[in-house]
Amino acid sequence: MIIVMKHGAGEEQINEVISLIEKLGYKSHLSKGVERTIIGVIGHKDKSPLQAFASLDSVESVIPILKPFKLASIEMKRERTEIDVDGVSIGGEKIAVIAGPCSVESEEQIVRIAHSVKNAGAQMLRGGAYKPRTSPYSFQGLEEDGLRFLKRAKDETGLRIVTEIVAIGDIDLLVEYVDMIQIGARNCQNFALLKAVGQTQKPVLFKRGMSTTVKEYLQAAEYILSEGNPNVVLCERGIRTFEDSTRNTLDLGAVALLKKWSHLPVVVDPSHGTGVRDLVIPMSRAAVAAGADGLIIEVHDRPEEAFSDGPQSLKPDKFAECLRETAKIAEAMGRRL
Amino acid sequence: MIIVMKHGAGEEQINEVISLIEKLGYKSHLSKGVERTIIGVIGHKDKSPLQAFASLDSVESVIPILKPFKLASIEMKRERTEIDVDGVSIGGEKIAVIAGPCSVESEEQIVRIAHSVKNAGAQMLRGGAYKPRTSPYSFQGLEEDGLRFLKRAKDETGLRIVTEIVAIGDIDLLVEYVDMIQIGARNCQNFALLKAVGQTQKPVLFKRGMSTTVKEYLQAAEYILSEGNPNVVLCERGIRTFEDSTRNTLDLGAVALLKKWSHLPVVVDPSHGTGVRDLVIPMSRAAVAAGADGLIIEVHDRPEEAFSDGPQSLKPDKFAECLRETAKIAEAMGRRL
Amino acid sequence: MIIVMKHGAGEEQINEVISLIEKLGYKSHLSKGVERTIIGVIGHKDKSPLQAFASLDSVESVIPILKPFKLASIEMKRERTEIDVDGVSIGGEKIAVIAGPCSVESEEQIVRIAHSVKNAGAQMLRGGAYKPRTSPYSFQGLEEDGLRFLKRAKDETGLRIVTEIVAIGDIDLLVEYVDMIQIGARNCQNFALLKAVGQTQKPVLFKRGMSTTVKEYLQAAEYILSEGNPNVVLCERGIRTFEDSTRNTLDLGAVALLKKWSHLPVVVDPSHGTGVRDLVIPMSRAAVAAGADGLIIEVHDRPEEAFSDGPQSLKPDKFAECLRETAKIAEAMGRRL
Amino acid sequence: MIIVMKHGAGEEQINEVISLIEKLGYKSHLSKGVERTIIGVIGHKDKSPLQAFASLDSVESVIPILKPFKLASIEMKRERTEIDVDGVSIGGEKIAVIAGPCSVESEEQIVRIAHSVKNAGAQMLRGGAYKPRTSPYSFQGLEEDGLRFLKRAKDETGLRIVTEIVAIGDIDLLVEYVDMIQIGARNCQNFALLKAVGQTQKPVLFKRGMSTTVKEYLQAAEYILSEGNPNVVLCERGIRTFEDSTRNTLDLGAVALLKKWSHLPVVVDPSHGTGVRDLVIPMSRAAVAAGADGLIIEVHDRPEEAFSDGPQSLKPDKFAECLRETAKIAEAMGRRL
Repeated sequence: MIIVMKHGAGEEQINEVISLIEKLGYKSHLSKGVERTIIGVIGHKDKSPLQAFASLDSVESVIPILKPFKLASIEMKRERTEIDVDGVSIGGEKIAVIAGPCSVESEEQIVRIAHSVKNAGAQMLRGGAYKPRTSPYSFQGLEEDGLRFLKRAKDETGLRIVTEIVAIGDIDLLVEYVDMIQIGARNCQNFALLKAVGQTQKPVLFKRGMSTTVKEYLQAAEYILSEGNPNVVLCERGIRTFEDSTRNTLDLGAVALLKKWSHLPVVVDPSHGTGVRDLVIPMSRAAVAAGADGLIIEVHDRPEEAFSDGPQSLKPDKFAECLRETAKIAEAMGRRL
Repeated sequence: MIIVMKHGAGEEQINEVISLIEKLGYKSHLSKGVERTIIGVIGHKDKSPLQAFASLDSVESVIPILKPFKLASIEMKRERTEIDVDGVSIGGEKIAVIAGPCSVESEEQIVRIAHSVKNAGAQMLRGGAYKPRTSPYSFQGLEEDGLRFLKRAKDETGLRIVTEIVAIGDIDLLVEYVDMIQIGARNCQNFALLKAVGQTQKPVLFKRGMSTTVKEYLQAAEYILSEGNPNVVLCERGIRTFEDSTRNTLDLGAVALLKKWSHLPVVVDPSHGTGVRDLVIPMSRAAVAAGADGLIIEVHDRPEEAFSDGPQSLKPDKFAECLRETAKIAEAMGRRL
Repeated sequence: MIIVMKHGAGEEQINEVISLIEKLGYKSHLSKGVERTIIGVIGHKDKSPLQAFASLDSVESVIPILKPFKLASIEMKRERTEIDVDGVSIGGEKIAVIAGPCSVESEEQIVRIAHSVKNAGAQMLRGGAYKPRTSPYSFQGLEEDGLRFLKRAKDETGLRIVTEIVAIGDIDLLVEYVDMIQIGARNCQNFALLKAVGQTQKPVLFKRGMSTTVKEYLQAAEYILSEGNPNVVLCERGIRTFEDSTRNTLDLGAVALLKKWSHLPVVVDPSHGTGVRDLVIPMSRAAVAAGADGLIIEVHDRPEEAFSDGPQSLKPDKFAECLRETAKIAEAMGRRL
Repeated sequence: MIIVMKHGAGEEQINEVISLIEKLGYKSHLSKGVERTIIGVIGHKDKSPLQAFASLDSVESVIPILKPFKLASIEMKRERTEIDVDGVSIGGEKIAVIAGPCSVESEEQIVRIAHSVKNAGAQMLRGGAYKPRTSPYSFQGLEEDGLRFLKRAKDETGLRIVTEIVAIGDIDLLVEYVDMIQIGARNCQNFALLKAVGQTQKPVLFKRGMSTTVKEYLQAAEYILSEGNPNVVLCERGIRTFEDSTRNTLDLGAVALLKKWSHLPVVVDPSHGTGVRDLVIPMSRAAVAAGADGLIIEVHDRPEEAFSDGPQSLKPDKFAECLRETAKIAEAMGRRL
């Protein structure tokens, strides 16, 4: 942490800051420039209390030097983490493929689509039973029925199941029914929910928030990790920007940055990331080329009847084409689909 | 809802869309342009299922015509809503002033600051007992102790109490201890939490999310209103943009827009909205001039020792100055502080 | 400037950096922390060449300490600058009011509207003769004819004239015909144009770019100032964000920040800043309450026939109402309209 | 174009709108919904004058139906455009590679780096002779000397030359010296400059602005195309968002969208797009996988001494590695580097 004193700060003010630093148990290091004096703060302890020094009249700014996340960092764990989802690995050589409809609409629908995506090459099935919809008047999900239908789809196809949690109270049900719990973008900084899933050992598909920076996102992942659950898979799903021809702006630079800063696996959601069906295939290829460890893709065989997100869903034949094209990129990367 | 057909869509495709529209119980209305055919959809029913039509190969886009919120809208309720917070009104002629520290740090601290802000002219006291911090390693709040200390501050000063909820499980405690429950920006689309506070009758201080559009924000308010709790106060607290010299960009245009579209009261948080102490006074004046019904301001008498948000907190004397200046603006608006 | 060395950087690497610093003529100051070594760079000279040190393998980051603008800064000139526009002052006690249509459409139109806005209380007339339109197929302006019509409007009403420049080649014409030259948002970092107007002594109405940070904006103003033209008026006109119910997000926090960091006057454009006619009045009031020195407002008496920007233009009666309301705020601020 | 009338608009108001539509030479088409009446506008003519109808008191909104660009659109020209840059093609099967330093610093430097990037596999050399720097106190480029040094580098290596134009007055010099003229992000909507390069036949490397939407970007390209210069290469170089760990957010979804909507070739700049050296290789791979036709990469052999942009420049060995990795992706796409 570096404390930058205001232009014109005098000896007395500088000494006041130094004595406050030392009172908190750190060492200080003074450096006088031509226009500004800066004071380095040295010590092993958490330096976040020092942010408050920016409140002193004599202080211009307080600048952190270290990255603010620990357990998620590559410095903490040099080898890449692989997460085991009931026998399917995410983070290894093989690119994981998760596919399915936005919402579970009926037992027949989810089982039918499960067969489709399995045939095309998916290992995992997605489908929402609890839906965080923008409007309370939109379809909110089939809830426990939806979970049972997903379980049924797993029994029939062997696909592992991932579904979203929206309330802490549902956690026991989800742990019982599904293989992986998704935290959606809107709950990326719902820290109570993160702590709750952190207290299970279930694999977590943890989506980045719409306006969460990469640093904040990794700090949010710390909430899950620091509660004792190491099974976190990160997921870039598009961020909110001024661009209005796509639903979100898919930030593949963040994927490369997450792989540089963290040992955790990263998957990409090109369906929500663009919101435009025709962009899902090129963005799936690009995600794998950027270093993603997996894809999560919305697939619906009758998108015009879907209860939600039809316009960004691929039909099964397009999904199969997507996997064929992406497999070539995976191979070029020394990986496979 | 308007369905725009792709250039070159033929009779058969147009008829397919019309028959799908009618199957869902709406009427259709055809309009052929020089380059595009458009189909209007007419009917009383919720039209959100029609979004899925964008999935049809023959359809270029689906354009909604109506605003997506109801109970919050000015069309639904022409007179402005006043919310009664244990005798303090928000939304009337008098501008409501809520002030206090970011966090409750001790009984002594919160009572001491309560007296300060009361003397300066505040009617309500803010202070976090449960803190949604970016990092799990930062101070997380005193929890139920914090609530007791807030209650104590009310007993001593008469100030009404508002504090943030971060988990549904705490709701009974908050209802018991405080006068108004705050939903923070990070939980603006935590719909499970919104439904839970919607099932109480407690006044809710409902903050806009960092990247929530005004339309989405009002739809989120619908979650509270439609569960039966009409006591919603909206709060603009800054949105996330590229600008990096302020912590957030305070969107006062949104305040004016919320007053145009909704009957609910709107307060403004210039402390989080800028993150810069020197901007709190000008933005408090500007908020009232834009039409805000109240202000929520961070005040701390020893900001350099604050557990959180010291740099944006006003000291009590500056807070008093802020209210004096803002009172003049209120008067110019035909209101009072 | 502070150089942060990577974790694990050794003596040799540290010495390499120090010797590079000294080779460039600065002094260095070493500070070893527990996890990182940092090196302060001290000296009077411009430190921007040191940014390149971030390229060294041993360096983690390079952090600037000083603000990057000089002539525009309040440190350089403590008293506030007033700009004289042919006898009308911007930056003094009186709030300047600039009004008029988006485009000059005909001599009759601009003279007619000039009389309207003069009667309502404006001191200056705006109107585009050269229009930077998003599409080349939209109306591009009347060019020199437009300038002549503006001059005619001045002759009839005494209103001072401001109009936008879009190409360096037009500068002599503009200097001859108008009292103040506007640089539009799209040209905020068109540095060649900034230098060219910097070589005149004409007052410049310099609009902030749609995605220009406050620091970049003041650096851009340095281009004009450092060429020798001190007559710069800053103008906040809305920035580009994710919000889609307003055309731009009017950043009034930036107005307060510009007044804190710079001695230059600041005016606000609530018409482009919101793009919504009903928001122009509340945002005019809020701008003055935030500390703005002037307003620039689009006024058209037949907005439904306007060649551009009709939807955000006020009709003359609404404009008069706007000034009446804003005058009360100005008075509450100890100023006048 | 669709005109949406306000709730409650009466016969008279509807008829007024219809008669205004017809006065302008279009046909109208009325459609009455349950809550709103909408009026379609039909006709071959440019419909932009109708935007002004949003100003009528009875009108809620005006919604365009057609895309706002023509010559750039895939509907206008179904086969993909290849641009010939003095014998090097951009837009064909082969991915074009442009590389070099941010700035031309000396004859020796640019010739030396030209040999490096040629050996690694580049076909074109970049290097700024006129630099649009954020601060007027930063290095502004060697100007005509820089052009001569670039020419010299071409003579020695055969690499085609691209350099940025910042002022219309330099256009004849650039046409004489270089093979391709770059329009930088800050000038993306400097329409006077676009028209000027549109009046030459030189290939143009046209960069997207930092906050220009894809639709606005293609409309800006129309300025060049409609002046008669068809040789436009689009370039995604990152957009401005809230994310602060990368310099910009590289929008590869926009690359896929540009390829879907336009026949023009698209290249990607991963150096400015991320601003982080370690992200350049993964983003180069991802760009090609997204469908890009070329890459423009900053390369410097002594980045710690570079006058600008050192931290994002690759050293020649890393650049060679970048091309080797990207070549594999190109092959997987059925293309080659």
